[in-house]
Amino acid sequence: MADHGVAVAVPVAGLQPRTSMTADPATLGRVVTQELSRRWSSEPGLLGAMCRHALTPAGKLMRPILLLESALAVGGDYSQVMPAAIGAECGHVASLVHDDIIDNDDLRRGRPSVQRQFGVGNAIIAGDALIFDLFAGLAECRHTGVPDSRITQALEIVARCGTDLCRGQSMEEELSRTPSFDLRPYLLMIRLKTAALFIGACASGAVLAGGDTHHVEALATYAERIGTAFQIKDDLLAYTGCTHTMGKSETSDARNGRVTLPIILAHQSGTATLRATIERTLFGPEDPAVRRAALAEILDRAGALDACAEMARDHIRQARAALEVLPASASRDRLSSFGDPVIARDR
Amino acid sequence: MADHGVAVAVPVAGLQPRTSMTADPATLGRVVTQELSRRWSSEPGLLGAMCRHALTPAGKLMRPILLLESALAVGGDYSQVMPAAIGAECGHVASLVHDDIIDNDDLRRGRPSVQRQFGVGNAIIAGDALIFDLFAGLAECRHTGVPDSRITQALEIVARCGTDLCRGQSMEEELSRTPSFDLRPYLLMIRLKTAALFIGACASGAVLAGGDTHHVEALATYAERIGTAFQIKDDLLAYTGCTHTMGKSETSDARNGRVTLPIILAHQSGTATLRATIERTLFGPEDPAVRRAALAEILDRAGALDACAEMARDHIRQARAALEVLPASASRDRLSSFGDPVIARDR
Repeated sequence: MADHGVAVAVPVAGLQPRTSMTADPATLGRVVTQELSRRWSSEPGLLGAMCRHALTPAGKLMRPILLLESALAVGGDYSQVMPAAIGAECGHVASLVHDDIIDNDDLRRGRPSVQRQFGVGNAIIAGDALIFDLFAGLAECRHTGVPDSRITQALEIVARCGTDLCRGQSMEEELSRTPSFDLRPYLLMIRLKTAALFIGACASGAVLAGGDTHHVEALATYAERIGTAFQIKDDLLAYTGCTHTMGKSETSDARNGRVTLPIILAHQSGTATLRATIERTLFGPEDPAVRRAALAEILDRAGALDACAEMARDHIRQARAALEVLPASASRDRLSSFGDPVIARDR
Repeated sequence: MADHGVAVAVPVAGLQPRTSMTADPATLGRVVTQELSRRWSSEPGLLGAMCRHALTPAGKLMRPILLLESALAVGGDYSQVMPAAIGAECGHVASLVHDDIIDNDDLRRGRPSVQRQFGVGNAIIAGDALIFDLFAGLAECRHTGVPDSRITQALEIVARCGTDLCRGQSMEEELSRTPSFDLRPYLLMIRLKTAALFIGACASGAVLAGGDTHHVEALATYAERIGTAFQIKDDLLAYTGCTHTMGKSETSDARNGRVTLPIILAHQSGTATLRATIERTLFGPEDPAVRRAALAEILDRAGALDACAEMARDHIRQARAALEVLPASASRDRLSSFGDPVIARDR
């Protein structure tokens, strides 16, 4: 650990600037995975063990990839913004670690959640460390050739998106305490809870790479739509997926009585009888697995699962449209197909 | 709440640059208090309520004052670095909010802790939001005339100090699980857990104000010593203070079986019989208040409370010595007397 008497004089060990390799998706994914494995590898003790457990093996790496592709899409060099991309994944994983405490979820990415493995108190600390690491990653861009003015602009964006994430999590807690079957608060909540970090990734990637304001705004809009679409898909999977494909408990939403989009759509379109059935089932005393199965059938019959899938697809279409102001590039194309898993009609 | 479609174009509402008023301590304290009250005042819902509860009425404001005085001590303008000072308090309060969950403490600053008032899940979110606000404060210095290069340097310092804070909290958890009566791990732990944010405040204040490297390093050393001294004093108060003067439960350390400095000093200097008595009392099944009272008597008789107070005073002397390289100024004098409450022989 650092000697704090000379804390200021010693630069953070960071990534060194290097010549960019071909920025194909496989390379980006490989480099991100390597850097994530390296990131907490030399940290001793419990904190290192927890952060490694949370970060590796890696998840889908959507946020770092989006950050890198956004940088490339505005003509930037991906290796310069790599530390920020790693930071974006740290920030996201921090939110998962803390969410799993809040939702009392024991399974994450197919293995015990941090709170399950190390206890609640320690998981709080691990999540905090990963939030600080988000900003440490941003600061490391000082050493990869990113001008200071871009870093401070990205700092402002990322800090606000982080605060928005907390607003969304807090709103989710409020909504679970005083359930609402209105669409508006739900959409605002997921925009804050999920889309905010997508916006942070895309906008900061573009800003760090020197993108002009129009392109940064287009990528922020893209991110907002695609983040919303992924959250809707997630809400859908809670009723159509299984623990194996999700890597987390499929009964979490039912267990926590979460009023998610398929529930709202069925509730809004249904008769008074259907609405009563939905409420009784969602908030009932039965085992979460029983409630989930019953809800899945109700939602399917009501056409809410199809409507939900269509709403996700519509957001993906809007995301793609937002990209049109960007110059044509391989990265723009890849950003455009980023939402393909949502479009796929497997619900 | 922000419209995320235009998230990038809208600047964060921040403090406006203004002419500095006389930087006497009363003014600094008043401005910090005002800005803290303002900070989350327009935030709706649960998150706003929690952050206001955590931040106000304000505590001793040591970290923001240290940040401002450090900026002044290197010849800077305090109003330029004010947002970072507010951020420093937010970061500190975040750590208190999360610590109170970890220690299951119900009382903080004389009122219910956030976890007690709003529940564990919500308190996690509030703490996270306050960590993000630490960085939002730093970013706001873009709008008060601080050059970008100083902000990114401060960002690097603050992110590392935040990670150190987590290292210290995690180490504290490890030490409470596998108690050690060695001085070294204890001193490293409090340097990380408490001194890190003092270092972050002083070093970032000096950097943001354009201080040269020698002065920044001197202030970092000062902060490390004074932070350590305050933690030692805190550990002492756990056995000599009362709930009323501390504003928090005086039985927390006994309840959580924390091996703090007075315990270590008594243990090291004592006979085998005394060591066994200390261990039996600290980890015994009795009510925390009973154990605390018994320990206080044991520690006092062993001379450990006096030795502990002397060690805190020694750190204050070292802190003062570190300031000598700075040019003479009212701020340097005030930094020098900052440790007076620790020096005072009230234990």
